[in-house]
Order: sequence, then structure tokens, then C-alpha cells
Amino acid sequence: MADSSALQTLIQALRKLPGVGEKSASRMAFHLLQRDREGAQLLSRALQQAVSQVKHCTQCHTFTEADICQTCLDSSRDPSKLCVIETPADQSAIERTLAYKGLYFVLMGRLSPLDGLGPRDIGLHQLLARATNGVVQEVILATNFTAEGEATAHVISEALKARGLRVTRLARGVPVGSELEYVDLGTIAHALVDRR
Amino acid sequence: MADSSALQTLIQALRKLPGVGEKSASRMAFHLLQRDREGAQLLSRALQQAVSQVKHCTQCHTFTEADICQTCLDSSRDPSKLCVIETPADQSAIERTLAYKGLYFVLMGRLSPLDGLGPRDIGLHQLLARATNGVVQEVILATNFTAEGEATAHVISEALKARGLRVTRLARGVPVGSELEYVDLGTIAHALVDRR
Repeated sequence: MADSSALQTLIQALRKLPGVGEKSASRMAFHLLQRDREGAQLLSRALQQAVSQVKHCTQCHTFTEADICQTCLDSSRDPSKLCVIETPADQSAIERTLAYKGLYFVLMGRLSPLDGLGPRDIGLHQLLARATNGVVQEVILATNFTAEGEATAHVISEALKARGLRVTRLARGVPVGSELEYVDLGTIAHALVDRR
Repeated sequence: MADSSALQTLIQALRKLPGVGEKSASRMAFHLLQRDREGAQLLSRALQQAVSQVKHCTQCHTFTEADICQTCLDSSRDPSKLCVIETPADQSAIERTLAYKGLYFVLMGRLSPLDGLGPRDIGLHQLLARATNGVVQEVILATNFTAEGEATAHVISEALKARGLRVTRLARGVPVGSELEYVDLGTIAHALVDRR
């Protein structure tokens, strides 16, 4: 397809994006070069800038451009509670509820032996150091309710309990606004056990 | 999600890619920054290079880094036949059949009033100039068999016939290897009319 090595290189580079295969990459390269060269340059600069400026918060591990992120610096938050989530997007979801005013630790992933992601990749060591700093009283595990998220929560929970910390997990139950008939059986079973 | 303007800028820039919405863009940015910063830099450079180096062949309009592409320069090809396709990917599909040895004209799109793409966007003027150069004897319309592709073929066909050129269209019919029972009725009807 078209004798341009720069185009071939671009198509291969676009395949680095998650979920993008050969055909999508071709379509993207074609679109950018044919209809949006300005967008291509904008994206090029944004990538360069993000790689050079975005680093991890030394406290909670999330993406930030400073040493410590705004959330960790916010003195109005309750430092005795630490909520553990998988990604910054999960943190954002919890923030939007306005129901939590403690601090966070972002794993930036989950334990996933199949993808080669172990304790080091989720910063387990830093989490343990943070949780045992004498200020934190409760660690709330808010990893996803997937197989990998549950396994990650289990591993962290065991490690923290061994250090005498109070560890809780987000409640499982029937989603707000849903009809029982359409809720899966595992969820109903959990909602029954955790009834209040 | 994370207090970094460089990250937000990157997410917005990724949305310039076709088919990428807010959630996909976040996932891509997250993946690149967390797991593949090298890939991000590679993509940044590839974009920059493609934008500065890739231009259009002055003869056939496809992507190339030279003034005239390799296909147009190939003297072993039959210059009396000109095949009109929508994209370089379509050209590549025809090349792989090894059944065509003429030249090409790549529209780099199709007529699409809804997307604001008119005759100028598909280089109709250049196509007419190329087709009436005295060497071309037959123009083969190989635009897609979609509504827009058919409309584009119709417009080009009318313009070329008015200039006294022989214009043909790819045959419609039953795909090789398919069972009649599963072929749509429109295709069977066309195959009946065009029987040989």
C-alpha cells in the first residue's frame, strides 16, 4: 500500500496503541495524512510532552507532573483512610460520588501473572510502606470485581492484615436502579449474605 | 483523573484518531505512559516524520515520498488502462490479485456530501486530465460497491463518457467459494443479469 516507508513506520507505530490492529492502524494513518495533518502534529507533540512531563506521585503513585499530587497535598482530606484502586480512572469515579474524603493509593494495574504483572508492578512494597506509616487506620480495597481484581485485593488484604491493619472491601450487591430479575445470581447471592 | 495537563492534552489529542472516544483515549494514554513510554516516543517521531515526508504522487494521487510513485514509474505496466480506486488499501488489494497490470488513480476518498467531500476532494479534475492524456484507452472504475462508492463511480463515469472514453466497472456477482443460499438477493440478481 503506497510506497512510503514513513507511512509504513507510522502504521507500525500506531499498532503500539492497545486494541489497534493492522487494519485500524492503516485507517488511522490514512485519515491523519489525508484529512488531519494538523491533528497528527498535535498528537505527536502531546505524546512527546506527556512522556517528558508525566511522572508518578511519590505518595499515591498516580500520574502527576509534580512530586506529590494535588489529592495527596489536600490537607482537608482524612489521612487515616486509604482507598486502593487500580487506575486513575477508578479514582476519578470514586471522587465523582463525593462520598469519600480520604486518601488514595493507585496500583496502576492489577496482579496479572498471564501479562507478567507481579507485586512489583503494582507497587505493593510502596503500598505497604504507606499503609503502615502510623497515620492510616483503615485501608479500603476498591479494585475491580473481576477475577484479577479480586485476586489482587486478596493478596493486598493478606499482607496488610498480617501487619495488623483494618482492611475493608467495597460492598458487593444489587446496583442502584436495577430490577432483581435482570441481576446475575452471584450478585444476588452476595447481596443476600451482606444484607443489612 | 490525575492532575496533569500534559495527560489531559494527550487524551484529547488521541481523540483525533478515527473511532477513538473519550474512554479509549484514556486507556491508550494510560497504557503508553504506564507500560510503553518507548512506544509513545516512537509514535511521536513516526507521526512527525510521516507528516513532513509523505505527499501525493503527481500522477496517481497516492501517498508517496517522491514526486511520482513507483507504480506510475514502472515502465512494464500498460499505460492504456487506468484503474480508479478509493484508497491505497484498495490498490493494494487489486495488486495482490496479480490480475491487473495497468496504472491507477487513487481518489483518496469518495464523494460524500454528508461529510462535505465533493469533486475537488477526490481530485476529479486531475483524474479527468489524466484520463484524457491520449494514452489511456480504458478506465476501470473499482470504487467500493457501497452507496457512496456507486455514486462516485456514476459521477466519474458520466464525466469520462462525455469525453468519449471507454469506461468499465468491476463485475458484480457471486463471491468465489460462496453458497447461493447465503448470498444476498441483490447480488444474485446482478449475477443473473451479468451471466456469461
